[in-house]
Amino acid sequence: MAPRALPEPVLVRGTGLLGTSIGLGLRAAGADVLLTDPSPSAQAVAVDIGAGTALEEAPGARPGTVVVAAPPDVTGQVVVDSLRAYPGAVVLDIASVKAAIAAEVAAAVESGAITPGDAARYVGTHPMAGSERSGPVAARGQLFTAAPWVVCATAGTDPAAVGTAEELARTLGATVHRMSAADHDASVALISHLPQIAASLVSSRLQETPAASLALAGNGLRDTTRIAASDPQLWVQILAANAPEILGILYGVREDLDRLIATMEDPTAPGARLDIAQLIAEGNAGHARIPGKHGGPPQSFALVTVIVDDTPGQISAVLHDVGAAGINVEDLRMDHSAGYEVGMLEISVLPGRKQELADALSAHGWKVV
Amino acid sequence: MAPRALPEPVLVRGTGLLGTSIGLGLRAAGADVLLTDPSPSAQAVAVDIGAGTALEEAPGARPGTVVVAAPPDVTGQVVVDSLRAYPGAVVLDIASVKAAIAAEVAAAVESGAITPGDAARYVGTHPMAGSERSGPVAARGQLFTAAPWVVCATAGTDPAAVGTAEELARTLGATVHRMSAADHDASVALISHLPQIAASLVSSRLQETPAASLALAGNGLRDTTRIAASDPQLWVQILAANAPEILGILYGVREDLDRLIATMEDPTAPGARLDIAQLIAEGNAGHARIPGKHGGPPQSFALVTVIVDDTPGQISAVLHDVGAAGINVEDLRMDHSAGYEVGMLEISVLPGRKQELADALSAHGWKVV
Repeated sequence: MAPRALPEPVLVRGTGLLGTSIGLGLRAAGADVLLTDPSPSAQAVAVDIGAGTALEEAPGARPGTVVVAAPPDVTGQVVVDSLRAYPGAVVLDIASVKAAIAAEVAAAVESGAITPGDAARYVGTHPMAGSERSGPVAARGQLFTAAPWVVCATAGTDPAAVGTAEELARTLGATVHRMSAADHDASVALISHLPQIAASLVSSRLQETPAASLALAGNGLRDTTRIAASDPQLWVQILAANAPEILGILYGVREDLDRLIATMEDPTAPGARLDIAQLIAEGNAGHARIPGKHGGPPQSFALVTVIVDDTPGQISAVLHDVGAAGINVEDLRMDHSAGYEVGMLEISVLPGRKQELADALSAHGWKVV
Repeated sequence: MAPRALPEPVLVRGTGLLGTSIGLGLRAAGADVLLTDPSPSAQAVAVDIGAGTALEEAPGARPGTVVVAAPPDVTGQVVVDSLRAYPGAVVLDIASVKAAIAAEVAAAVESGAITPGDAARYVGTHPMAGSERSGPVAARGQLFTAAPWVVCATAGTDPAAVGTAEELARTLGATVHRMSAADHDASVALISHLPQIAASLVSSRLQETPAASLALAGNGLRDTTRIAASDPQLWVQILAANAPEILGILYGVREDLDRLIATMEDPTAPGARLDIAQLIAEGNAGHARIPGKHGGPPQSFALVTVIVDDTPGQISAVLHDVGAAGINVEDLRMDHSAGYEVGMLEISVLPGRKQELADALSAHGWKVV
């Protein structure tokens, strides 16, 4: 028999949002999926919504692939346990910090708990998808569609195990990004953990703000703080596991903040204004490096803003007229203002099409602002 | 003659984005508008697009209202100059920091440059609308529709002048919020200036990030840093003018950051995890206080996510089916992923309508994830 890229059955250990979504996606692709979770009710929900068969209903089953989808702080331990319990299986994990788990696997080899051959069957991965919700009820088989999925192999990893990790990602519709665990952890510290910390720091200041002040809030505050609504229990585990990488970045932030505070304490001193402008300009420079849509180069779209009533069908009617004009919507967002029952629909289009769109919508009677 | 609420002609001093937009909006409402700007080309553009008549084309004109729309750091001086130059006129300004300008007006009374009666004709205001663009070319008459417009009167302000300020805001479609200059400046320090600083601090860290790391960036980073693309020259003036209010907040942020850094330096110490969870939980608490749509109480909507191809008409077709189901779109956004030519359309609806919508869209053949 030729080796299969994704050996079945696939055992998913942990039926939270991500584990259950993996089960649903694999089942939709026709794979044989087994599920287990320390919480009987979480497992029962996952089975009920069709994410797979309960492990205990398949006595003697020998998983070809084990996906560890446990909470971050027990993932390393469940990975080592899985390597021991399922000697022939490829063992993957999906936790959002990777070097700490690789270190736990290496320590298990060191202590003799597993062999180097066992460790070669392990591949750390990180699907960069999630939701503000959690638990199996929020799971959806297409959660990973078009999401980046990082695969962290080492020199010692069995190439077949790497193939399994990549096949899992592709089967679920994700894009594979290969990088080392260290590069992964440095990357997420910057692009995920730092924004979370910043959003929490800003939001924390709002705890005692008068309602009259908050009534003035616009999209600037809303966007900057959106992810501050995240789960403290999950984030404690993520931040603690990636502490060294995050610390390096926070030292840099504190240095910039200290410099800004010193400047603001004497804003009329010579050079003070240049210092402030420098911080904003450095933010411009960093922001300009964030890739554009579909991973292409950063791109500026032109914005056409239309006023819509807050009634069913309005947005659809605007976008129907956009589509009828043959113009592609590159991006879309709603802006709501306090005290008004209207919204602003912001439509991003290629700059060359802006005037044409504004004219077409005005001709259809829309208020283009 | 009965006193008019908005005495004409209205002279707009400064034809940048905001001044020109005010001119366009007033002209659309039938008002007589005069324009002047130290930059002849900016003024010519504003006149050309119909925002008003050049001041020098109206010799002997006596403005009834003067709107100072100059850069923040010269606004106080232009206000004082306007109070002297136009003895009968109500003088308003629209700069984004208010106490510093009020102090300049008070100092001018103190020095005898103007009388207390002159100062009574001045009202500081702040329309909370803007754009990532600047200059008269980006101006639009409906820029202020449904935006909050803060009006800062004092005990000494002539009630008729306050009426003029409020009439201007209402004529342009904005909502009037009355508060003192001190309350205004404290409010914007939190809801506008702090988010700007946080976005710039985070973005600044991205300046030397490898492209492979940035390719993993999702909406969390994009949202948190969106406003980091702002104009350094404008923000230097805003931050410097509101330095005392901002400093108080930054001290609080630095205290939280120092505590987090100390905790992260020894994340396995007793109590460390509780400290980290506390920061995230405080962020939750502050974030929950941001008002919901239309200034109503913070509200949770349910999200239905649909996969759409990146071709014209797709989004409109989805939203047509949403409208046909009689369900109102409470909020809307697009999510794009690197490497895929598809987007996720995230539709927020009232939680009770979620399942109905998901079913209706699935029945129409849409991929609901």
